[in-house]
Amino acid sequence: MSKTTRILKHKNLFNDVFKRQYSDFVRGQATAAANLKERVLFHGEPSGPSVVTPVPGPRSTKLINELETIQNVGAVQFFVDYDHCLGNYLFDADGNVLLDMFTQIATIPIGYSHPRLMAALRKPENIASFVNRPALGCLPPSNWVNKLRDVLLAVAPPGLTNVQTMQCGACSVEHSQKAIFMWYQRHRRGGKPPSEEELKSCITNQKPGTPEICIMSFHKAFHGRTMGALAITHAKWVHKLDFPQPDWPIAPFPTLQYPLDEFVRENREEEDRCLNTVRELFEKWRLKGNPVAGIAVEPIQCEGGDNHATPYFFQGLQDIAKENNAALLIDEVQTGCGSTGKFWAHEHFNLREAPDLVPFAKKMMTGGFYFKKDFKPTEGNRIFTTWTGDPSKVSMLEAVVDVIFQEDLVTNTANVGDYLMSALKELQKRYPGLIMNARGLGTLTAIDFNTVESRDKAVYNLRQKGVLVGVCGEKSMRFRPTLMFQNHHVDIFTDIFNDVLAGLNK
Amino acid sequence: MSKTTRILKHKNLFNDVFKRQYSDFVRGQATAAANLKERVLFHGEPSGPSVVTPVPGPRSTKLINELETIQNVGAVQFFVDYDHCLGNYLFDADGNVLLDMFTQIATIPIGYSHPRLMAALRKPENIASFVNRPALGCLPPSNWVNKLRDVLLAVAPPGLTNVQTMQCGACSVEHSQKAIFMWYQRHRRGGKPPSEEELKSCITNQKPGTPEICIMSFHKAFHGRTMGALAITHAKWVHKLDFPQPDWPIAPFPTLQYPLDEFVRENREEEDRCLNTVRELFEKWRLKGNPVAGIAVEPIQCEGGDNHATPYFFQGLQDIAKENNAALLIDEVQTGCGSTGKFWAHEHFNLREAPDLVPFAKKMMTGGFYFKKDFKPTEGNRIFTTWTGDPSKVSMLEAVVDVIFQEDLVTNTANVGDYLMSALKELQKRYPGLIMNARGLGTLTAIDFNTVESRDKAVYNLRQKGVLVGVCGEKSMRFRPTLMFQNHHVDIFTDIFNDVLAGLNK
Repeated sequence: MSKTTRILKHKNLFNDVFKRQYSDFVRGQATAAANLKERVLFHGEPSGPSVVTPVPGPRSTKLINELETIQNVGAVQFFVDYDHCLGNYLFDADGNVLLDMFTQIATIPIGYSHPRLMAALRKPENIASFVNRPALGCLPPSNWVNKLRDVLLAVAPPGLTNVQTMQCGACSVEHSQKAIFMWYQRHRRGGKPPSEEELKSCITNQKPGTPEICIMSFHKAFHGRTMGALAITHAKWVHKLDFPQPDWPIAPFPTLQYPLDEFVRENREEEDRCLNTVRELFEKWRLKGNPVAGIAVEPIQCEGGDNHATPYFFQGLQDIAKENNAALLIDEVQTGCGSTGKFWAHEHFNLREAPDLVPFAKKMMTGGFYFKKDFKPTEGNRIFTTWTGDPSKVSMLEAVVDVIFQEDLVTNTANVGDYLMSALKELQKRYPGLIMNARGLGTLTAIDFNTVESRDKAVYNLRQKGVLVGVCGEKSMRFRPTLMFQNHHVDIFTDIFNDVLAGLNK
Repeated sequence: MSKTTRILKHKNLFNDVFKRQYSDFVRGQATAAANLKERVLFHGEPSGPSVVTPVPGPRSTKLINELETIQNVGAVQFFVDYDHCLGNYLFDADGNVLLDMFTQIATIPIGYSHPRLMAALRKPENIASFVNRPALGCLPPSNWVNKLRDVLLAVAPPGLTNVQTMQCGACSVEHSQKAIFMWYQRHRRGGKPPSEEELKSCITNQKPGTPEICIMSFHKAFHGRTMGALAITHAKWVHKLDFPQPDWPIAPFPTLQYPLDEFVRENREEEDRCLNTVRELFEKWRLKGNPVAGIAVEPIQCEGGDNHATPYFFQGLQDIAKENNAALLIDEVQTGCGSTGKFWAHEHFNLREAPDLVPFAKKMMTGGFYFKKDFKPTEGNRIFTTWTGDPSKVSMLEAVVDVIFQEDLVTNTANVGDYLMSALKELQKRYPGLIMNARGLGTLTAIDFNTVESRDKAVYNLRQKGVLVGVCGEKSMRFRPTLMFQNHHVDIFTDIFNDVLAGLNK
């Protein structure tokens, strides 16, 4: 069976337009890979992008106008035919094919329509997880313990053996915060049970049951959009304006100079400055009578600009948290699940011990958080929602984890990340003053532009040439390809990016 | 093909124990229905509960102990073999079959393993929704507008034509609150754009971009467990203790006397008292400089005790909200989707116009909220999360809505609700002093016990006899059957409940 036939059979959903286009796409991928001496991770992908209309095209534009009568569409880029999407390629509603380096805000782990995901959907033992969604906190499925062990705990951050599923990233962060607050107050009580007054007053948001305690966060952080996660988010006004929020301490996140290894002394000074402020804020909020129960930090600030800090900074944070009897929450919602060349980004930091809590979502398919035993609530029904997760998402994650292990995808992102970083650095040399500060771990990479306008123009022009990337911070472009992204994809991207940059430089 | 064979073929997952038991179960359902002259809504269900071990049995107990090493299990009742569950019946890990009248905290609309849900999972046009989860806010699927129109807007509350999907009930409430805050501040600005100072200050949780505005809620309310939803939740300490919360106004929810039609005068006085307090709280918080932007209320307070109020109360609330330029949010997460004998519980209230926002989740399979046009954000990326919902859940809801319409299930819950209420009232007469205050709309019903202990004993004994019910408030028992619950199920329940009550009365 020829490759084209096999793919068409596999997909079985292509309309005539796509069928005609498809045979053209398929030729080159294996060739490109062979030239680079790499095995192909996703068989049958297009050989590269193919753009036949502006993006968004007429059909997307029509749909955007229709959707506008139902909800705000200000953030909609274009509409997608997800039936057709394959591997690293998005197929839009107008027949355009785009190399996807943003992957639904970094949520697609092993590519679109991966055969193992299709198979997971059909496995008889998975069906009930899709059609009979349980209230996991009271009536878990009889295979649930095994699923937690074999899937979620099989990829747990070293040192963490407890896990709680949730729905999405925001509620994973929210319930991690609640686990911190309960832990902190339990220690404050010194083992005594809560008083009658506490039990009663909390119900109406009053002291002492409703304590004045807080979470310290960082400038430019992003942790989510529900009220508790938003309280520790400080990236952009669009997330924050008009919403009541508590006055909690916010520390500076290091503003490092790149490449990190060329600015070791300067960066160390900057990180010391930030760590000192963290120490001061602990003291300041203690004096206010509103002590810090925990610190929340991203291993790399993504939404805020792909801001990196060194292991020294995170080790320091952990020390300061311990000195102050506060918890350390490392939010791996965007950075977790293999894209950084480690399964969890904080594994790059050689922490003395595991972080206390690690929320996850996005590429993990399900929300949730890992935590140390001491953060397990002592009473039932404390960390609990109606659904408390979704076994169908764990069925999908099971397939993802299998593929990650079998294909050694974490090694892949480490290697492809090196190749991508070399390419970005090469372009940086070629277009000085236009792009700068290439940085990243694995394929989780970013580059800065000289201005917002040139960044936005580059994003737009890349899209018109069939490459989808993300933005972050003020004038950064971020790359979040799948774990199946390979060197030959880097080459496709580099060629097109070079064209776009050359065009901007004119 | 005999019925037994057909079911076994359909399920194809029964182990030997179940195979032996099954032929016994299947006999009577159709007979029971025939005796009551009702057509069978769910074919092939067991004829009634069957309990062969204590619940939880040895296998559940073993699994609870194993799960305890991974997370808190205080709320776990027993483990379930969801592969085997069918219609209104739960099959537990020890081979017990229970008539489910709590349905995963009121989340199962058309019964377990409904053939239409199984079919939805396999429909070729639905596959992409399960394997390629989009970032709906920026790259929606090309069939998304149609899905919103044909599924979510097809069952929208009268007068509401806008809808936003979300993940779960809590984030549906949270983003509804945010829509209220944006709307309120927009009107306060009188059409002017936000100032530079607002845009900047909000990022660090400071005034004026972070306003002091609030949502008014009710004592005993439950709206969810993330920080914003929790701020308006006042049902039980277990939801609240140790978590920092804002000091927002809380009004009394009417404490009515049942049956409502026997206490018209007393209930009217009580509702007037509560409405007056609502008015006073608006004024009080305005004077504090922290004005009320909206009122959040459940049509029936579920978690708080199945507390009802009359249309007069809700009409009054809407009037007061309007007088104060505040929004009215009616939280239909538990009450929506047909169980009250109307699709939305607030349709019982004959409001002068639609409520401003109606969050939903649970039986709707997806989270989300309906809203009036004026509550649509004016900028993009304001009501937005990474996933912003889940098309796979809308694929499932599509099947649910089809079945609800085809089988006229809302009429069914109205009729079966009457039958169930008659049965509860009959039992109430038979066991005076033990149970009282039977109340409900449709099959969303509840009854009170004289003490917490007798209520809890009754719940436990019902479970040992194969009926699963819920609790709420201090000493209430709540019933949340599927929309497929029929009179012959009521008869099964009534017989067993009578036995249990007789046992308690000894």
